[in-house]
Amino acid sequence: MFETAELGHTLKKSDYDKQVPELRTRLLTVQRKLRQTGFPVIILISGADGGGKGEVINLLNEWMDPHYLQTNAFDEPSDEEKERPEFWRFWRTLPVKGTIGIYAGSWYSEPLSRRVHRQINDEQLQIELMHIRQFEQLLIDDGALIIKCWLHLGRDEQKKRLKKLEKNPKTSWRVTSRDKKHLEMYDDFIDAAEKVLSGTSIGASPWLIIDGTDKHYRRLTAGRHVLDRISRHIDQRTADAGVIGKTAASAAMDSARPNSLDTLDLSLKLDEKTYHKQLDFYQDKLSKMARLARQEKRSSILVFEGWDAGGKGGAIRRLIHALDARHYRVIPVSAPTDEERSRHYLWRFWRHIPRAGNITIYDRSWYGRVLVERVEGFAAAHEWQRGFSEIVNFEEELMRDGIIILKFWLHIDKDEQLRRFMARGQISYKRYKLTEDDYRNREKWTEYELAANEMIIRTGTQAAPWILVEGNDKKYARIKVLKNYCEKLESILG
Amino acid sequence: MFETAELGHTLKKSDYDKQVPELRTRLLTVQRKLRQTGFPVIILISGADGGGKGEVINLLNEWMDPHYLQTNAFDEPSDEEKERPEFWRFWRTLPVKGTIGIYAGSWYSEPLSRRVHRQINDEQLQIELMHIRQFEQLLIDDGALIIKCWLHLGRDEQKKRLKKLEKNPKTSWRVTSRDKKHLEMYDDFIDAAEKVLSGTSIGASPWLIIDGTDKHYRRLTAGRHVLDRISRHIDQRTADAGVIGKTAASAAMDSARPNSLDTLDLSLKLDEKTYHKQLDFYQDKLSKMARLARQEKRSSILVFEGWDAGGKGGAIRRLIHALDARHYRVIPVSAPTDEERSRHYLWRFWRHIPRAGNITIYDRSWYGRVLVERVEGFAAAHEWQRGFSEIVNFEEELMRDGIIILKFWLHIDKDEQLRRFMARGQISYKRYKLTEDDYRNREKWTEYELAANEMIIRTGTQAAPWILVEGNDKKYARIKVLKNYCEKLESILG
Repeated sequence: MFETAELGHTLKKSDYDKQVPELRTRLLTVQRKLRQTGFPVIILISGADGGGKGEVINLLNEWMDPHYLQTNAFDEPSDEEKERPEFWRFWRTLPVKGTIGIYAGSWYSEPLSRRVHRQINDEQLQIELMHIRQFEQLLIDDGALIIKCWLHLGRDEQKKRLKKLEKNPKTSWRVTSRDKKHLEMYDDFIDAAEKVLSGTSIGASPWLIIDGTDKHYRRLTAGRHVLDRISRHIDQRTADAGVIGKTAASAAMDSARPNSLDTLDLSLKLDEKTYHKQLDFYQDKLSKMARLARQEKRSSILVFEGWDAGGKGGAIRRLIHALDARHYRVIPVSAPTDEERSRHYLWRFWRHIPRAGNITIYDRSWYGRVLVERVEGFAAAHEWQRGFSEIVNFEEELMRDGIIILKFWLHIDKDEQLRRFMARGQISYKRYKLTEDDYRNREKWTEYELAANEMIIRTGTQAAPWILVEGNDKKYARIKVLKNYCEKLESILG
Repeated sequence: MFETAELGHTLKKSDYDKQVPELRTRLLTVQRKLRQTGFPVIILISGADGGGKGEVINLLNEWMDPHYLQTNAFDEPSDEEKERPEFWRFWRTLPVKGTIGIYAGSWYSEPLSRRVHRQINDEQLQIELMHIRQFEQLLIDDGALIIKCWLHLGRDEQKKRLKKLEKNPKTSWRVTSRDKKHLEMYDDFIDAAEKVLSGTSIGASPWLIIDGTDKHYRRLTAGRHVLDRISRHIDQRTADAGVIGKTAASAAMDSARPNSLDTLDLSLKLDEKTYHKQLDFYQDKLSKMARLARQEKRSSILVFEGWDAGGKGGAIRRLIHALDARHYRVIPVSAPTDEERSRHYLWRFWRHIPRAGNITIYDRSWYGRVLVERVEGFAAAHEWQRGFSEIVNFEEELMRDGIIILKFWLHIDKDEQLRRFMARGQISYKRYKLTEDDYRNREKWTEYELAANEMIIRTGTQAAPWILVEGNDKKYARIKVLKNYCEKLESILG
């Protein structure tokens, strides 16, 4: 696939000088338009040594407005990065909507390098590529534009270049032993690169292979490609905006679906004495298991969803009683901040992924996408509909990294909810929890029930099933939560 | 100072049980009030081993609403933390206004431990304490409440406790060789602690020393102290709100001050040929010096301030031409995001402090506090007035860590500004820079000039002086900026 990039494309300096001013003007214009459209642009500049990656990156920074453009380089992961899933370091650098992120090194660097050095085989490479496709698709579905440029340099050109650099005393420092080793491995490198590029040239984010031999040619080609892709994406989005409005997928709820929540036995309860005995028992046990998990650097993520007044807060309180406050964090999820709103909806959850051995408790979570955002219409139908698989992929990614995930749905019936709302008015330190919204949300009970039910069916996986908690009796619910976390830790840590 | 904490304060369990429910209710109530008042609470729980630090921290987490409370623990700094100034790791964890941050380990841990282990002497300790006082004062001035509890345990009690823990097979794991070593060093520890506590019990954030022997006593005392301090701070702030409005310090500008900007020779210019020669020369030089700085892990922070259309953007562009895009970042400073607004005004600048060997370029900066915020009235008089010393302290802190700071004021006169505004309308890729605001700001030219002048006088220090750039001729200005950065790097790196 690199043949056409070795045809020796060149461009005269005079032609280059003539064409650059217009290109710059148009890049600045399109960058300004981009700021108003509200999607992020991700530009990957990869390729062979000496293909001009650094130079092209510097040029893009110079040609465009550096205020709304950020270049991200990736060396060795920091220890904060190492203790989290592989993609965390990329999530944290994703550009804000309306801006551009240029990637010098990216999610491709590691798999490519590992394949070249034979640390993984072809099959393992394919699995890595699948994760990359998922990641990119997720961003593309959210409107992001991903532009991927590969600067190619043939073997002979590569050799010539190193020789030339070495001869000049001003540049000889740039030739390292690593460069020479890379030249020896050139064929392996090209072989692996071919697999990577062909495996990830998916429809919406194809690779452009650029002949990197001539500096004027590669600069202008890369610049024009960036300009062209952004312009077209802006036009496309403008055109789409009209269509989607008209043909929005039907968001009607399927009330004929089997309802797993209906089958819960809400009469389950514990008497006071049994409750306190079991509470002590499981808190004691959890305390030990959590300590063990921390020693073994296993993180946990606990998700609490359920009806308003379903007892999430109380269950969380009983849970943290057994934990060390230095090692857990409770994240209340309500309206996103503006920094969160200007990124992919999963970004706000990625930022709280715990370091190794810690626990993050989400009080409400990414499931808002297919619950409140769906029911209240905050997300369009096509957005929440793809949410199911996005969430499953997200959780699988966390689990691949060894993170333990538990998802609790705290279930009560409508009467019990009303009783609790009334009672909240009575207890002084609980009164603040009651808002008018609570009563309003009751009116959409059926819609929420259907949405919850579909969520449970479509996101309850073998590895991260929903734990449905019969919550009419708070004591029963709290023990069930504690018990489940204990047993999960036990099954994993032995 | 610890004598009264060894009097053997105790509290019967029955009394404790009786008093806890009311304390909890009141803590929750005050926490809810806090959410509406808009100041952060910082609670430090420090003290001797076995004084019950962890237990008190866990209890506060349980008693209060864990959603608006975050516990921060500090082990070994991560490598991302190590490569930045000492206080960076604390800045990144500071609680949002309206919430509580509990600190298990804090800015006190390191100096205390280093003094006990004789890595620093008393004088060096005093310098560390001065930095701590500055840091706390900065937060207090911004409205933060800092509550500092020291849980004390006498030597004999300490000994007894370890023996008891060791005897019980269920708890013997908790006694480490570190604990035993600490017991041996008890006198040194108490000696150092006394110095630390007495040196940092400043008016608004005194230490409370709590007898840690009896668990019921220490729990209730700590809980009540937290409640009391927060309640009083809320009342105080409410009372102050009225007064400040009435007695706001006069913000009148002193137009009689010597004006250092007036003395600039704005006729300075470079001809085209000299400009290009010098541009090449200094860019080439900067490129080398910057590489060297990166090798030696010296970071730079470059601040650009000056009039609208003063040429900041153009100067930055010529500068980054010589740099590697992977290692610098341009931060455009305009309106803060809501996450930034809900913290100390310096927080948004701290978050961009570069890792070792990198460069951050601030296009406008923390100086907005004493420029636009002062002139437009976004900051109250007492806020921008203390800004001068806060900024000087901030920059000193960065420089202590070895960061190179350069501050450029790009100066043009009023006529030149108008010429540039008009010209912007002509060049297509510059047109977007022109807004109605630009013309409006011209009307306050005199106020801005006076504010800039005072800023230059009061924040231009020996180590980080203002570099005043005669900017009527863009070419002259760009070379002056480049030259100054080159020379600074040269003087430091040799």
